[in-house]
Amino acid sequence: MFEIKARDGLARMGILHTPHGKINTPTILPVINPHFSIITIQEMLEMGAQAFITNSYIIYSDEDLRKRALEEGLHNLIGFDGPLMTDSGSFQMYVYGIELDPMEMVKFQRDIGSDIGTIVDLFSENADYATARKEVEETVNRAKKSMKEKGDMMLACTVQGGVYGDLRRECAGELAKLRCDVYPIGGVVPLMENQRYADIAEIIIESKKELPPSRPVHLFGAGHPMIFPMAVFLGCDMFDSASYIKYAKDGRFIFSDRTVRMEEMEEEICNCPACASLAIDELKHMEKEERVRVIALHNLWQTFMEIRRVRQAIREGNLWEMMERRAYSHPSLMEAMEVIKDNKKWLEKWENVSRKRALMYAGRYSIHRPIVYRLQNRIMKRYEPFFEKTIIFDEMEKPYSRAGWLKRVKANCIIESPLGPIPIELDEIYPVAQSVFPWNIDMETERERKRACSKFYRNLVIVGMDEVEREDENYDIRKIKSIANYQFGRGAGDALFDGDVEIIKSKRTGKIRNVICNGKHVVSMRASDGFFTLKMEGGKRLHSFFPPPKMRVVVNGDAASFIKEGRNVFARFVVDACRDIRPYDEVLIVDEDDNLLGVGQSIMNREEMMDFERGMAVKTREGIQSD
Amino acid sequence: MFEIKARDGLARMGILHTPHGKINTPTILPVINPHFSIITIQEMLEMGAQAFITNSYIIYSDEDLRKRALEEGLHNLIGFDGPLMTDSGSFQMYVYGIELDPMEMVKFQRDIGSDIGTIVDLFSENADYATARKEVEETVNRAKKSMKEKGDMMLACTVQGGVYGDLRRECAGELAKLRCDVYPIGGVVPLMENQRYADIAEIIIESKKELPPSRPVHLFGAGHPMIFPMAVFLGCDMFDSASYIKYAKDGRFIFSDRTVRMEEMEEEICNCPACASLAIDELKHMEKEERVRVIALHNLWQTFMEIRRVRQAIREGNLWEMMERRAYSHPSLMEAMEVIKDNKKWLEKWENVSRKRALMYAGRYSIHRPIVYRLQNRIMKRYEPFFEKTIIFDEMEKPYSRAGWLKRVKANCIIESPLGPIPIELDEIYPVAQSVFPWNIDMETERERKRACSKFYRNLVIVGMDEVEREDENYDIRKIKSIANYQFGRGAGDALFDGDVEIIKSKRTGKIRNVICNGKHVVSMRASDGFFTLKMEGGKRLHSFFPPPKMRVVVNGDAASFIKEGRNVFARFVVDACRDIRPYDEVLIVDEDDNLLGVGQSIMNREEMMDFERGMAVKTREGIQSD
Repeated sequence: MFEIKARDGLARMGILHTPHGKINTPTILPVINPHFSIITIQEMLEMGAQAFITNSYIIYSDEDLRKRALEEGLHNLIGFDGPLMTDSGSFQMYVYGIELDPMEMVKFQRDIGSDIGTIVDLFSENADYATARKEVEETVNRAKKSMKEKGDMMLACTVQGGVYGDLRRECAGELAKLRCDVYPIGGVVPLMENQRYADIAEIIIESKKELPPSRPVHLFGAGHPMIFPMAVFLGCDMFDSASYIKYAKDGRFIFSDRTVRMEEMEEEICNCPACASLAIDELKHMEKEERVRVIALHNLWQTFMEIRRVRQAIREGNLWEMMERRAYSHPSLMEAMEVIKDNKKWLEKWENVSRKRALMYAGRYSIHRPIVYRLQNRIMKRYEPFFEKTIIFDEMEKPYSRAGWLKRVKANCIIESPLGPIPIELDEIYPVAQSVFPWNIDMETERERKRACSKFYRNLVIVGMDEVEREDENYDIRKIKSIANYQFGRGAGDALFDGDVEIIKSKRTGKIRNVICNGKHVVSMRASDGFFTLKMEGGKRLHSFFPPPKMRVVVNGDAASFIKEGRNVFARFVVDACRDIRPYDEVLIVDEDDNLLGVGQSIMNREEMMDFERGMAVKTREGIQSD
Repeated sequence: MFEIKARDGLARMGILHTPHGKINTPTILPVINPHFSIITIQEMLEMGAQAFITNSYIIYSDEDLRKRALEEGLHNLIGFDGPLMTDSGSFQMYVYGIELDPMEMVKFQRDIGSDIGTIVDLFSENADYATARKEVEETVNRAKKSMKEKGDMMLACTVQGGVYGDLRRECAGELAKLRCDVYPIGGVVPLMENQRYADIAEIIIESKKELPPSRPVHLFGAGHPMIFPMAVFLGCDMFDSASYIKYAKDGRFIFSDRTVRMEEMEEEICNCPACASLAIDELKHMEKEERVRVIALHNLWQTFMEIRRVRQAIREGNLWEMMERRAYSHPSLMEAMEVIKDNKKWLEKWENVSRKRALMYAGRYSIHRPIVYRLQNRIMKRYEPFFEKTIIFDEMEKPYSRAGWLKRVKANCIIESPLGPIPIELDEIYPVAQSVFPWNIDMETERERKRACSKFYRNLVIVGMDEVEREDENYDIRKIKSIANYQFGRGAGDALFDGDVEIIKSKRTGKIRNVICNGKHVVSMRASDGFFTLKMEGGKRLHSFFPPPKMRVVVNGDAASFIKEGRNVFARFVVDACRDIRPYDEVLIVDEDDNLLGVGQSIMNREEMMDFERGMAVKTREGIQSD
């Protein structure tokens, strides 16, 4: 069972429950060799390891180990009472051409008590399309059979398909139907080794498009932290690594942005516990065995630290920035950013409404962030001009409406921000006010914002300042209507704020806090991101105005009475939901006859609500009976 | 006395000799408060500190401390027998409006035995131009007087001038005449605090344009590692920091790319010795005093590690990459890159001929690297077409001449690389072969290379492949002549390779190794960067061909006989040198009558040779008498 605790778009912090305890994701499972290990389990636990992966094939093929594993169980053999995952030997089969009985290996993993076993999938590296397609079919067949034999063991069914995006999608789609416990993405090790990060990005994206969001995704064999921010951003939850030891044997130090050979290292450039007290010369003169151990320790420290930095970034909501900055450390990572750029429309579906922190421009990919795509798109589709004439302004100090006279101009005031055209009324919504750009933006950002602007101006009458009056007094009304249209859809402003409107502002900041219509509290405004939270009265107005399925989360009859009283909506009660709902959107909770039950904030998008068997889908703010 | 051990353009690894020992630069001097210190000197030495800075004003203004300092000496007072620098109280005067007698303070520093004292300069923060100008004059006056009173103490004379580039230059120029021991750049603390990195970059550049290269430059009060790569790249050698303790008191953790408040930290994102064994929750629940100490330790560990990473980058020759990547961590650092971009012509004077490692594209500023400016400029000015017709090719796999048929095309083959137009004959020189770009380059790079190409094509006749024959057999001759022209100047190819030319290639790689003319070894070719090293015969040929001062380093009579025997040229013997000589260029060593004494590789450019009193200027390869 997998549950989500926090998210930043597709990236998530989750908990995977196994028979031997919880695994907090994202995380990495160090590979343990059942024969010998130069780093102890205790040492790895201190670094942050929570679970390990070992190779069932190695155990199976050693008579003594096999016997002990079957008798004492895997956990006793390894000497660890927490979560253990096993790999099946697919990679060994592929590399060394070993023959294995796929079902026998699954049963073996089950019988030795692995918490998470893995199917024996077929590894398509450089296979041609026809071969890769056959291998996908066989992998899916094995997965089907294996699911029947897994018993109480959790089973990981690996997505294959080589570098063919459509095969990856097909494979993921077929495996999705089986409701497996974990979905590894396989066959990426050779791509990692050749720094084909663009291929890896595409493979993850195509797989994720079909995999059920309620299941953790494991990027098999990806143990270098260079890939972590990107892989987690694209929705990977777990990694495993033998890299720490492989690189150590080769005298290579892993860092989050590169690998450094020992002989190239002339300064003590690491502070980790393995390195801090060691001079470079001491290291270079160590016995090889001891040195390999030191470097392996270093590699694991760096690896776990990077995982924690990714986790911190998810909490802060700035994983994109982390990923983009990391991309500049290698041209091949920049190629991967191009793939991500091309998928922004899909990424937008998973994108949070807003974030705790400002959007920091990190370079030429920032303009392609899903949140910017949403901003430009919504302004294009949902903006309703108030005046016949439009005036265009250059980027200026934020928030734009600080320049008080602008609010009185009797024209649509559009600011050409680096994010695209921004109507002045929207100057406080995320990420308009909450973004930091340098004065010198790159040419791609310049081109993108110009494109967005000229598209936006198409049906507007652009005039100069001398052609308009400056005595409009309805700025606040324009503002709340514009935000409502942006947030809920065209027409929402008029529907919500119909009647005798009273706008209550903060005495301290002068900012809008609440809107009352005909004496009823309709919406509040969040200071952090400038968006509205719906009160029940607001929900009722939008419910009458928008026909279903717009804004709706439909729950089944069993849950209706609880929700009316203000209880939260759990995913398992959701029978349908509007496709336009995004994480942290305001939603209308209705029963199957479209009776309004409550209003709340969604935690998930539609795909997630429909897929998750556990966890909260909507945090109910008000139920209709608590009104 | 300051000497240089390694360099990457303006950035250098040096040794500053003080009465109490050596300081390896670049480095940072932690600020020690003579009243109390929560981190011991021993602890800081273990982190990598070599020297400390303390405030002589604090000692002077405390009767007890003053008495002890005068009696026991500064080193006993502080309890450290290594290099100690003292600040003068200028900053305290500025901030708290304290009045000090400038000469009294210099004498006091001298009398307590400071290794490096500092003048009482005037700190112009937001002063208008006229005031800042007066303050510069007064600072220069004080420096003049102070130099007479310094005794055996080394004296640091601080460059001021507010944010006015021309005043910084003027101040630096006046102070340069005094031949001070250290040149701090002052007045940057408020700029650091407001992240005005572009202003800081400009101030450093304008100061460095006039400061003597033989003296270390200290960026006063810059203690956050975010600025280190840029400041060192621009020629700063020393930093000092009270930031570690100031930030700690405020609960802020310093990282190389940002600052994180304790309350924002939810994961253990640091592995340094202060943090590694500590859970975030433990830290948050500590007593304040203990917590401040832990954070201060962390801040110093991070600070010293970053200094070591900068040092490693200088050794590897990839400080630009480090600086550019760091720039993407904050929009204000990107603004600073714009300033650096505008100064590429000046930066090129200090730029190494080549580097150990490939040039890695790190984003949209890479095309503005001084080495790329040199490449485009030299190809523009020094390329001599061999044929009437020219064919243009798109970027292709490197080295371009791997496609053997290209070598036989009877036309000038120009490849439109991301670096600009590259004649095929130059495909193996640095950084053409030794550079890594992604396939998708940014639009600014695209524009820059297109500009360089169209400028280059102006006098060429561009044709299609069907208009040329493909049976030229003189590729190797074209290649060696083109490289010679690029490296030494137009006409060098014909002058060097005149007569019966024999080209010797490596049996293993097939690459050109040596060129023999009329039986004499003229040049060798370095495999690492594709450039020639001059043999004596090559030197003679270029010496007759190029009139002085071209390629010359002129030494005084005393040194002549030693150099003839093959001894190296030390800077103090250089009386003049060609302005076009760049670090690691091949040079002709001559006496004052332009008699050729030897050939060698310069370590310095002209400004450095003329300024340094110590250190090697030219590594002599052959003296005329060892010929």
